[in-house]
Amino acid sequence: MTTSPASSTGLEDVVAARSALAYIDGERGILAYRGYAIDDLVRLSFEQVAWLLWHDTIPTGDALADVRARFAAARVLPETVIDLLRKLPPATHPLAALRTAISALGALDPDVDNNDPAASGRKAVRLTAQTPLIVGAWHRIRQGLEPVPPRAEDSVAESLLRAILGDVPSPTAARAIDVALILHAEHELNASTFVARVVAATEADLHAAVVAACAALKGPKHGGANEDVLPMLDAIGAPENAERYVLEKLAWRDSLPASERQRISTRFSGFGHRVYRVDDPRAAHLRRMAETLAATDAATARRLAIAERVREVLAARRGLRVNVDFYSALVYQSLGIPLDLNTSVFAAARMAGWTAHILEQYADNRLIRPRAAYIGPELRPLPGVAA
Amino acid sequence: MTTSPASSTGLEDVVAARSALAYIDGERGILAYRGYAIDDLVRLSFEQVAWLLWHDTIPTGDALADVRARFAAARVLPETVIDLLRKLPPATHPLAALRTAISALGALDPDVDNNDPAASGRKAVRLTAQTPLIVGAWHRIRQGLEPVPPRAEDSVAESLLRAILGDVPSPTAARAIDVALILHAEHELNASTFVARVVAATEADLHAAVVAACAALKGPKHGGANEDVLPMLDAIGAPENAERYVLEKLAWRDSLPASERQRISTRFSGFGHRVYRVDDPRAAHLRRMAETLAATDAATARRLAIAERVREVLAARRGLRVNVDFYSALVYQSLGIPLDLNTSVFAAARMAGWTAHILEQYADNRLIRPRAAYIGPELRPLPGVAA
Repeated sequence: MTTSPASSTGLEDVVAARSALAYIDGERGILAYRGYAIDDLVRLSFEQVAWLLWHDTIPTGDALADVRARFAAARVLPETVIDLLRKLPPATHPLAALRTAISALGALDPDVDNNDPAASGRKAVRLTAQTPLIVGAWHRIRQGLEPVPPRAEDSVAESLLRAILGDVPSPTAARAIDVALILHAEHELNASTFVARVVAATEADLHAAVVAACAALKGPKHGGANEDVLPMLDAIGAPENAERYVLEKLAWRDSLPASERQRISTRFSGFGHRVYRVDDPRAAHLRRMAETLAATDAATARRLAIAERVREVLAARRGLRVNVDFYSALVYQSLGIPLDLNTSVFAAARMAGWTAHILEQYADNRLIRPRAAYIGPELRPLPGVAA
Repeated sequence: MTTSPASSTGLEDVVAARSALAYIDGERGILAYRGYAIDDLVRLSFEQVAWLLWHDTIPTGDALADVRARFAAARVLPETVIDLLRKLPPATHPLAALRTAISALGALDPDVDNNDPAASGRKAVRLTAQTPLIVGAWHRIRQGLEPVPPRAEDSVAESLLRAILGDVPSPTAARAIDVALILHAEHELNASTFVARVVAATEADLHAAVVAACAALKGPKHGGANEDVLPMLDAIGAPENAERYVLEKLAWRDSLPASERQRISTRFSGFGHRVYRVDDPRAAHLRRMAETLAATDAATARRLAIAERVREVLAARRGLRVNVDFYSALVYQSLGIPLDLNTSVFAAARMAGWTAHILEQYADNRLIRPRAAYIGPELRPLPGVAA
């Protein structure tokens, strides 16, 4: 009594959806959104890139002014959501707070019962504008501070920094976050985006699908990885210690039986990627940002110097390549964003990709319903119950 | 630049996980949990069935007393969650309220940062005991009523009825709900359960995975179907109208072009199933419950008589078979459960299956990460931006 269709637990290399959003070439190190290489997209603003993902057009001139006006109008957090955040224990993980707030926003949305394409498009703008406010409001509320009132004229990047830090950000800081948001906006069917599409395929509303994506992002095997890079750099302490640290960890790793290597985390945080065989194409842009910030920030300069040595040693000894997490952690730290908000910043960026995938799934929908291979017992009578 | 691994959008017949929980034989009409046929399991209590799903053992005697004590201890809703429900608009869909409350419970759980198997097992008991309280609390709060304080000695079925209706339920009513909970507890990788496993595979916590499952259940293509059966029966009005209603709807359906049939809902609610080719094995038990309730309830007797005629005509004319939704809607209505809570009752039952799948995924985990087939444009330069 075993069902055994083409078996692939983990669904590796199985196609679960068609998508025009992200093109990834792991061999050549190319990431493109709707055909535009990430190296070009970083010249735009996050708002333009989000709009491109949603509507396959890059707004400029009056169209861009209109898009900015939509974001400005959406940049408000209902008092109910702020009250709700105040009720959560201060130790609540920022992603759990974000997920809860977005779930409530689903009930409060002006288009709550409207699932048509135009309404879902409005919800995508609202959530992308509101997420930075939630991330910042939660960070301030958990410290006993008041949330910062949003400013209509801010960009998404500026509103994220202001909401977290309470100050008007410098142009350098705002530009660094704008680039980070663009680089993290979309990456095909990672676990959270896939979950968003499965939920959208049941024709649940856009907020429901985003809540589920947020829930998936909380997993250490998905969004959590970028919180481990800085502790490693700080454990190394100085550039001259990097080679010894790396070699000792490699030797320790090699001494483990293969089964232990799987059980214990022996990865180098910020290195390696399931798709890219060369350097993650997003890393070079974040490295440049880190260099800019290091020019006026001694702590960042020191960490960057350590990071460069770690990168050289791992590349030379094991051919390991940096991924997007490696420099993003450095950039966020330099801007004063606390380590445990890194994944929430990721969520603020990926909101554009999640919602674009949801709109794409609605437009050409089919329920996503795989099977399980049954590995349980044969049919058996209940013990101790008379037939 | 197209990736094209074995293509199957919708993942139909693709194996995404191994599971020992549900065995389904659609040809013979068999549903079994861990090898025990549903026809036998309905002799047990929902608590025993939930424990069977989680731990592959049916508790009896002292072990059952211990399980009941665990449920009793878990049957409490933090005041924070009740406050949160009070803040939601009364029109909030019960599943959106449930999802938001469970998301907050994740932050409040005593094992919040503990993902080991024992802690996740405790969370499964807690959520299964708390969900009936949330469903009932929301229904009362949206009417301006106070939530009913839970009683330790109640079964899950009793606590669900008391939480919704405010009264101590009759033994007949409690038994009907107990059977309904058992029948809905588990059904392999439907969309919500699949989502729970994808989230669990990122090693996110159990509450995060359940929040995502709840989000998926909200979709009309998944959980929403059982809210349509009663309006159909009431539109028919009397048994003698059933044949004409069915024949007219069939004739109208046949007159539509195939594309329209897909676009407009022309299904008969409560009929047909993607897996079962014979009567859904759960339907017979709910039909018997409906008959018992109809013996003392004229409105239910009338609806049941209409239902039987609809069933006979559709079977004779089109070979259509009833599914689990057909009689469950009748049973819930007879017990006084409002129509828009049907899917929440489903969630209270499926909580056992969701959490059992999450525990199973944790125990033998692999990230679930499919691919998308790229259907977007070739690489292209940015318009109007100098290279």
